[in-house]
Amino acid sequence: MTGTGLRDAYTAATMQHCDILIAPRWCIPVEPGNTVLTDHAVIVTNGAIADLLPRQLADERYQPSVVIERPSHVLIPGLVNAHTHAAMTLLRGFADDLPLEAWLRNGIWPAEKRWVSAEMVRDGTELAVAEMISAGITCFSDQYFFPEIVAETAVDRGMRAVVGTPVVDIPTSWARNFDEYVQKGADLVHDAFAEHPLITSCFAPHSTAALSDEAFTELRVMADQLDVRVQIHLHETAAEIEAALRTTGKRPFERLLDLGMINSSLLAVHAVFLTDSEIVRCVETGVAVAHCPRSNLKLASGIAPIARYQAAGVKLALGTDGAASNNVLDVLAEMRLAALLAKVEADDAAALSAFDTLRMGTLGGAEALGLAHTIGSIEIEKSADLACFDLEHLNTQPIYDVTSQLVYATNAAQATDVWIAGRHQLEQGELVNFDTGALLARSDEWRQRFASTPS
Amino acid sequence: MTGTGLRDAYTAATMQHCDILIAPRWCIPVEPGNTVLTDHAVIVTNGAIADLLPRQLADERYQPSVVIERPSHVLIPGLVNAHTHAAMTLLRGFADDLPLEAWLRNGIWPAEKRWVSAEMVRDGTELAVAEMISAGITCFSDQYFFPEIVAETAVDRGMRAVVGTPVVDIPTSWARNFDEYVQKGADLVHDAFAEHPLITSCFAPHSTAALSDEAFTELRVMADQLDVRVQIHLHETAAEIEAALRTTGKRPFERLLDLGMINSSLLAVHAVFLTDSEIVRCVETGVAVAHCPRSNLKLASGIAPIARYQAAGVKLALGTDGAASNNVLDVLAEMRLAALLAKVEADDAAALSAFDTLRMGTLGGAEALGLAHTIGSIEIEKSADLACFDLEHLNTQPIYDVTSQLVYATNAAQATDVWIAGRHQLEQGELVNFDTGALLARSDEWRQRFASTPS
Repeated sequence: MTGTGLRDAYTAATMQHCDILIAPRWCIPVEPGNTVLTDHAVIVTNGAIADLLPRQLADERYQPSVVIERPSHVLIPGLVNAHTHAAMTLLRGFADDLPLEAWLRNGIWPAEKRWVSAEMVRDGTELAVAEMISAGITCFSDQYFFPEIVAETAVDRGMRAVVGTPVVDIPTSWARNFDEYVQKGADLVHDAFAEHPLITSCFAPHSTAALSDEAFTELRVMADQLDVRVQIHLHETAAEIEAALRTTGKRPFERLLDLGMINSSLLAVHAVFLTDSEIVRCVETGVAVAHCPRSNLKLASGIAPIARYQAAGVKLALGTDGAASNNVLDVLAEMRLAALLAKVEADDAAALSAFDTLRMGTLGGAEALGLAHTIGSIEIEKSADLACFDLEHLNTQPIYDVTSQLVYATNAAQATDVWIAGRHQLEQGELVNFDTGALLARSDEWRQRFASTPS
Repeated sequence: MTGTGLRDAYTAATMQHCDILIAPRWCIPVEPGNTVLTDHAVIVTNGAIADLLPRQLADERYQPSVVIERPSHVLIPGLVNAHTHAAMTLLRGFADDLPLEAWLRNGIWPAEKRWVSAEMVRDGTELAVAEMISAGITCFSDQYFFPEIVAETAVDRGMRAVVGTPVVDIPTSWARNFDEYVQKGADLVHDAFAEHPLITSCFAPHSTAALSDEAFTELRVMADQLDVRVQIHLHETAAEIEAALRTTGKRPFERLLDLGMINSSLLAVHAVFLTDSEIVRCVETGVAVAHCPRSNLKLASGIAPIARYQAAGVKLALGTDGAASNNVLDVLAEMRLAALLAKVEADDAAALSAFDTLRMGTLGGAEALGLAHTIGSIEIEKSADLACFDLEHLNTQPIYDVTSQLVYATNAAQATDVWIAGRHQLEQGELVNFDTGALLARSDEWRQRFASTPS
């Protein structure tokens, strides 16, 4: 045996098997921050990230079942959509350009009351999941009726989801009263999806106006017992705060504080308006904020002072909100808009950098959902939830700074590949796990039903 | 001859030849307003729109050389980018997340001083034109050095352009002093491209700070003599207005008014800050505003109160500004952002409807550039400048309202076809007139040069 042959034999004997070797041109692991790796490979085995190392070393150390070459692409942690109402994709553009009250009272609510059902939630969630995976999103936090159907649909399509079980005190097609909402939520946490690796449940009281103090207290006890998180629309509009002051004498945040709900398991959705002392409380207690900039513009709610929240150290995530108020489920676009709005709001073009918003759309989302041990960055032992974008397009050339190009110039349609728990769900721009034609046909049938709703 | 045969023969004898019959699922002609036509056809002959009529009638009346079926698409007038610096696509992402002064003084200006040349303008403009056509844009208004190269490149690629010839009082690689800037601009108007159907020239003094009163007076005389329009960056930032007040005792708008420049041939670019009386003056005199919402956010300039401008009756167009401050040339995205920002700025979710912004991005742009007789709407005898977007994508389904879906949910990558003066420049998503690989390679060479600039 020659020296070379001996070395080859030794190398082969010491090489490790792995499932997938992904070799993008660039990799932004998010943790550590402000880092762009060139010519590195991500090694995936058993659905987890097994290694992240220079390509040359990877070729020496690993024998992959599959090699994925992406020579003009950037690989990032899968995007996290920290707030949506997935099934409402069926109401995309249903009632646009209306004042908020008219939008809800004459548009959305009558349509929902007439048509929301398990079947509608299944089809709407499937459309949403297909759209999100196509846009590089690997995890979404949902808040809608029939959450067990949301969970089931996510599992069927290989998507990771945080399923918020709605809690209100009005009867709907899903539950009759507060007790039944909470019980059905608790069942979801404990039963069907308790051990499923892709699904987490949480309680999602709609807003402070939706529940009495007694109900919130009961919910808090239940959430503590079950050890589940809570998400709530909070300070979305000035009108919400004014109404609360009129009816309870307290701002919604203050009321939740008095009720013991302001703690590290709370996700405050929107939080467009926080006073300085509320910001301090968020930092002290670990409350996270799901910033939904596009929805806040479209419904004329306001521009959250995100640069101030960030400077104070508030945990920040990004959400699309539902497609009825956005109108797309595109976290990459929310990242760009968040960065741009923060600059004008703070009167500082250096506010909220491209990397800051990328972190919000990935690891920040994971932290806000209590999933940072599993997802949000490309780190060894985390789940292989990954997204890949091709930058070899006219609108993303030339490239001085990959992170800046991703945030300020890349279009969601440039997502080519998505892996969730190591499963390839988007491959070279094609969804692996959907019959898109049938899905769009069913979506159009729902459109016909919704459009027939008397207003 | 049977009755049917006779009818066929008669029909054939009376049918008119045409070059192209375009049959989209929907057509939004923009004029008349708020109109969506279904199952109509656009007839194109000799580069112009010859007819717009129900598909069935079109099949009875016309014998086209080419039939273009677009069964899940919406056809609109080509988008108009009323303000850009095309060559600066080569500086896309060059100096992001910097305060405005540092961005200009340490980033953009030294790089431009070192590298701007006819060759750089040719390659940068070609990249910009390719990106714009791919995004459904059929006309752009430019402001950069070597405008004759901008015009030449536009003509080479079949793009319509309004070429602003720069006027400043500092020496650059293009001209040495005020007189030479004006003379070279006048030559461009009168010579090479005077009669070219795709090219219009205008004077583009950079800003009021760039010229003395005497120079503006001379420029006005020249512009009147040549009958050309003028475009200028005006009230882009609060700092610009404050500096003018300090140095001249007047706001820039007031100074231009005193100099006789506030008239219907002026395009005020940005105009983020206009007082009520300035708004009235714009309406009275016919000054148009090129609103560049994304650039205004990115450089932290501010949010123009567009709903107020619109209510007053100001002529409104949309611009992307240069890719160094945006970072893409995507009028569809500017339309969406304009509508969203107007809502939050006016505290009214009903402000600036989807159709209002579509009009700004088409006919409004044409009016602002003095081209409304030729482009901006799908009307008989106008030039066949058209754009087609495929709505059969996950993010644009289901469809309740086509205009709303186009503005709030459609991605520029959904542009499938573009015609400019009847020439098919984007065909099923592919650029007809570019060697994209060679173009991107040259763009990357420029990146290497720019990146080597000492700051």
